[in-house]
Amino acid sequence: MTNPIPHIPSLHDADLAARLQQRIDTKTKPLGALGRLETLMLRLGLILGSEPPALVAPQMMVFAGDHGLAARGVSAFPSDVTWQMVENFLAGGAAVSVLARQHGLALTVVDAGVAHDFAPREGLAIAKIARGTADSSQQPAMSEAQCLQAIAAGRELLQQRPGNALLLGEMGIANTSAAALLLARLQGLPIEACTGRGTGLDDAQLARKTAVLAQVLERHAGVAAPLEALAAFGGFEIAMMVGAVLQAALERRVIVVDGFITGSAVLVAAKLQPAVLERCVFAHRSNESGHALMLEALGAEPLLDLGLRLGEGSGAALAWPLLESACRILKEMASFASAGVSEKA
Amino acid sequence: MTNPIPHIPSLHDADLAARLQQRIDTKTKPLGALGRLETLMLRLGLILGSEPPALVAPQMMVFAGDHGLAARGVSAFPSDVTWQMVENFLAGGAAVSVLARQHGLALTVVDAGVAHDFAPREGLAIAKIARGTADSSQQPAMSEAQCLQAIAAGRELLQQRPGNALLLGEMGIANTSAAALLLARLQGLPIEACTGRGTGLDDAQLARKTAVLAQVLERHAGVAAPLEALAAFGGFEIAMMVGAVLQAALERRVIVVDGFITGSAVLVAAKLQPAVLERCVFAHRSNESGHALMLEALGAEPLLDLGLRLGEGSGAALAWPLLESACRILKEMASFASAGVSEKA
Repeated sequence: MTNPIPHIPSLHDADLAARLQQRIDTKTKPLGALGRLETLMLRLGLILGSEPPALVAPQMMVFAGDHGLAARGVSAFPSDVTWQMVENFLAGGAAVSVLARQHGLALTVVDAGVAHDFAPREGLAIAKIARGTADSSQQPAMSEAQCLQAIAAGRELLQQRPGNALLLGEMGIANTSAAALLLARLQGLPIEACTGRGTGLDDAQLARKTAVLAQVLERHAGVAAPLEALAAFGGFEIAMMVGAVLQAALERRVIVVDGFITGSAVLVAAKLQPAVLERCVFAHRSNESGHALMLEALGAEPLLDLGLRLGEGSGAALAWPLLESACRILKEMASFASAGVSEKA
Repeated sequence: MTNPIPHIPSLHDADLAARLQQRIDTKTKPLGALGRLETLMLRLGLILGSEPPALVAPQMMVFAGDHGLAARGVSAFPSDVTWQMVENFLAGGAAVSVLARQHGLALTVVDAGVAHDFAPREGLAIAKIARGTADSSQQPAMSEAQCLQAIAAGRELLQQRPGNALLLGEMGIANTSAAALLLARLQGLPIEACTGRGTGLDDAQLARKTAVLAQVLERHAGVAAPLEALAAFGGFEIAMMVGAVLQAALERRVIVVDGFITGSAVLVAAKLQPAVLERCVFAHRSNESGHALMLEALGAEPLLDLGLRLGEGSGAALAWPLLESACRILKEMASFASAGVSEKA
């Protein structure tokens, strides 16, 4: 097993940043007129280390896993939906499948720990740590060894794939619970503020979920370090995403972060290696109520705000064309000089 | 000349709306989990009158015109930039050119009234009403006959083009002034609230622009009706867009509205025929300070909020993939039944 936590250096490069900014500012448009797309151009240029940057072979990886805590009734849907949706992803019928086709994203579904045996096939990576995590209200969701194994597997999966952009997606019934627990513990936030309706809880169910999560936090009261919290609260798909994020950061790939659960993986990774955040593009602000706090914890300003709360990587895929636009504009748009357009008086 | 103002009927169709909503709600996702993308699906289905809707041969039309009021120093850039940018659009070097290529949008640049003679070429429609409008601080920007001629030309240009979607773009130095004047007069708003920095005025220049616009409003104090206001304040590109919007609405095309200036054309069209708004998709919330009030006047909730203030149709083009996604998801995404996924408990 390689060292599961690589060192991620800062991308700070004042010369490159100045050259990119100069390129942006001489395009035929009023200064700053492309707004947050200009910030995105700068970020993509710094991550990829090229001027202009070009996105190559984007990988949409959807990490799936089951959660022992689901038995406590924290989700509106039964655990079987995890494997059923994996089948749906692979058959091309899920939202993320449709969007990946639309945008030419290579889609890999990763069985990080689903409680189901899948037939091997194209587009499915079987990296199962176990058939679902343990119930974190009773014991740690996973052992320390499982946690490190999942991170190493995430790194390896990423390493095997080409390209310079990773889009993160996930599937796992009850995984908004794991994400809420990680957010609450790692940021020292009240669990009520971190807990949302997930796939559609009503008020009574939300109150029940919040109460269960409060018990889980109490059960693991001494846990504070990022990896211990990850092991305590799970899940396997989140731990594997932590590995994929670290490896992508190490390789200077662009990391497109979807919503609340992928955000929790980035939060853990950033607690270990803060410079991973320099490689991230946050796709959207979701409707899951803890996501605003998650984004704040990550210092993130997401591109879209469409009230999405589906997960799967659907928000990352929807935002993808904006990244393509940013790169194309940097490369193809004329400058005042090249187009013979008069500058501001 | 055909009647320049056609009657636009409401699209109200409760049966179709119910069938579309049913289709949305049985997709393999929690109810409502695709957020505003679901509202978009419904709207596109109702506009196109089909289930599922499909977008065909989208037309990006960039209407350009010059403004006599520019002589009063209301813009940061000289009027020559209008024709120079038209050349840039046609040469493929502007932001909207890059984005149209990225998304497969047919780009037509319309000379609605630029103070320059263009050589005819592919992608340029010459429909010049005059070489720029008159100075609206001295007289109406155009005559009533010119206004009706521009509207008729806009209708005809649209009619000549295939497809079922129109993306609106514009170019015209000083046209944020015309849009601000239309917004202020048609909505009864103070000019200070409607006037922004356009292509980049500083505080003193903004104060000067606001003072000039207040004089223009005073000069045309008796003008209240939409067409009279359009003739008084201009410009030719805005009037031609009014015609294109009316014709697109009549033909049940989807109208993708860019920012502040295209919004002013939709505002005039909606004052004439309110049901045009049912055919509109608002692309983005711009950084031009009057745009929030414009969106409110139009009852619009735009898709993107990226701090853009470029115009050209760049925001409409950036939002376009979301419309494509909405249609693809409606068509290609599996239902719970077809995918064998368990429903909510």
